[in-house]
Amino acid sequence: MQYYAAPLEKLIEQFQRLPGIGRKSAQRLAFHVLSLPEDGAEEFARAILDARGSIHTCRVCQNLTEGELCPICADPRRDRSTICVVTDPKDLIAIERTREYHGLYHVLHGVISPLNDVGPEQLKIKELLQRVAEGDVQEVIMATNPDTEGETTALYLTRLLKPFQVKVTRLAYGVPVGGHLEFSDEVTLTRALEGRREI
Amino acid sequence: MQYYAAPLEKLIEQFQRLPGIGRKSAQRLAFHVLSLPEDGAEEFARAILDARGSIHTCRVCQNLTEGELCPICADPRRDRSTICVVTDPKDLIAIERTREYHGLYHVLHGVISPLNDVGPEQLKIKELLQRVAEGDVQEVIMATNPDTEGETTALYLTRLLKPFQVKVTRLAYGVPVGGHLEFSDEVTLTRALEGRREI
Repeated sequence: MQYYAAPLEKLIEQFQRLPGIGRKSAQRLAFHVLSLPEDGAEEFARAILDARGSIHTCRVCQNLTEGELCPICADPRRDRSTICVVTDPKDLIAIERTREYHGLYHVLHGVISPLNDVGPEQLKIKELLQRVAEGDVQEVIMATNPDTEGETTALYLTRLLKPFQVKVTRLAYGVPVGGHLEFSDEVTLTRALEGRREI
Repeated sequence: MQYYAAPLEKLIEQFQRLPGIGRKSAQRLAFHVLSLPEDGAEEFARAILDARGSIHTCRVCQNLTEGELCPICADPRRDRSTICVVTDPKDLIAIERTREYHGLYHVLHGVISPLNDVGPEQLKIKELLQRVAEGDVQEVIMATNPDTEGETTALYLTRLLKPFQVKVTRLAYGVPVGGHLEFSDEVTLTRALEGRREI
């Protein structure tokens, strides 16, 4: 038996398809939508269509953007000799927030993950090699996550980039700022010791 | 500085306005929408507009429905002499799921809550009194939540219903089926003892 009116049930189902949203949360969200003013619901629906319709990947770095080039690739002040390779646009944002990096990016849109059936051909690797082959690039920074899949991807890319004779670097490992040594795992501490610097 | 392209940022903001969704979840949901096929995004947007546009309250019981009357009020097999008063449509669904109640409902759409600035005039109380005044009703079951606000609302309604000389009942209190006595609070256990029955 169906308990909710059909359009409400349909909206609940739509919310339920979103990642991390179960039946109860979907109900709560759907009821919230019903309680919105008419133009609030329209604004929400329009935001979905606009985002889905106008956002695509930057022709150069594969970041998400409205234009043909993303604002970073289009910015003449960015240093074109460095490319920072990230897994997805959220990681790009995380690095941008530091305000310390002034080069360009390359978004892979994933990592090599045999368990999830993701191979190199599904990532934006061809596009990266092409950029490096064009010649202006001097350094490629691997900023994939410091986990197994991120490491594998970084190593794989490093091997592919070897023939181009560019410098390939990796983000430093170490103890996180504000963290506690006693809670750091052995691997991180080992890496922090290995990477120690004179002060 | 804005890091995301404007339409994406707008979609994130829209998700962030939903109850229980913070910035990080909103980002995750927005990225999911971007990864939907074009017609998936359209379906989602349409579900929002359809639900908001076509769902309104039943003329009689104030439940959410597409038609003028909700399916329960329109069903000739339901017992018209009993009205079960619930706080919101979700509670109605919870009772329907038991398949044990065959009367009608009345949805208050809230409870009296001075702390949240909700007074009796904001609830569908007038509509309830009118239904009872029309004369066919013999019993009104108070199925508001067993918390302070639910109790207050039930007591308030009971007083208002007194002049109509209908039977007013309250859901039984007791230990929940499948629960553990050791984890039951004293008030619930006291109520369970008071309401004990011969077996």
